[in-house]
Amino acid sequence: MRIIKASLSAAACVAMLTASVTANAAEPEDAINYRQSALGVMGWHFGPIADMAKGDIDYDADEFARRAQNVSDVSRLPWEGFVDGTYQDDGHGVDTDALAKIADNPDDFEKKQKALIDEAEKLADVAQQGDFKLARAQLSTVGKTCKSCHDDYRAE
Amino acid sequence: MRIIKASLSAAACVAMLTASVTANAAEPEDAINYRQSALGVMGWHFGPIADMAKGDIDYDADEFARRAQNVSDVSRLPWEGFVDGTYQDDGHGVDTDALAKIADNPDDFEKKQKALIDEAEKLADVAQQGDFKLARAQLSTVGKTCKSCHDDYRAE
Repeated sequence: MRIIKASLSAAACVAMLTASVTANAAEPEDAINYRQSALGVMGWHFGPIADMAKGDIDYDADEFARRAQNVSDVSRLPWEGFVDGTYQDDGHGVDTDALAKIADNPDDFEKKQKALIDEAEKLADVAQQGDFKLARAQLSTVGKTCKSCHDDYRAE
Repeated sequence: MRIIKASLSAAACVAMLTASVTANAAEPEDAINYRQSALGVMGWHFGPIADMAKGDIDYDADEFARRAQNVSDVSRLPWEGFVDGTYQDDGHGVDTDALAKIADNPDDFEKKQKALIDEAEKLADVAQQGDFKLARAQLSTVGKTCKSCHDDYRAE
């Protein structure tokens, strides 16, 4: 009984924590907010390593590896927020660039998710080696998986 | 040269991706948006396992384990968004519940982060065993680490 009470309090705690993203999405805006948050978190970590790849900031092998691992971890997450009724023109009134054609091409959309997840995992592994050229090349491959999906399923 | 071009295109791709969360925060709102997104993503995954713990939904060992791993992975991420100049009353004009006293107690704040990260990692491990009572007990422990930090550093 004590455990159950504590769990309830944990849930209440999470309810406080999730002011902007609600677990167990009942509403399209929750799913949209969730996926945009997850993609944004991934982008936050991708940004500095892309800057290193471009030479805009110095290569820091540890920092590159840490952020690459974060990109890989988060790359698995956004996709459960892409559900029917949450795309552009689905009448939910929430701002989203996710095209409705995602719903018509679930296999291809999933294939593109998997490409990102797989290549991001390779990036995290390669980054551990601390070889800038290898890491940069794999980062480029990851970027191409982003672009491949955006080209088909994201509004211009 | 080809690799560098590809990396640039990857960066451009991420720029598109991060409409709402910008890497390499230059502005307080970027850091606030980032940390709120990361905490929200964590809450999204915590929610359904808290619902299982409460008995509101059926226990699904695989689903519990998957979401517990996600909570653990994301638990490491929000903290770099808590930086000076991003707290309540710091004059940035962004809505945040993060109290300015965080800046005065960096060691304690970091200790509380570490408690969450450590207990969430244990949760991910325990959840793998598929024992509901053990997983529920550890979820409660994780919830207490949330609450401990909120009690001290989050606005009512």
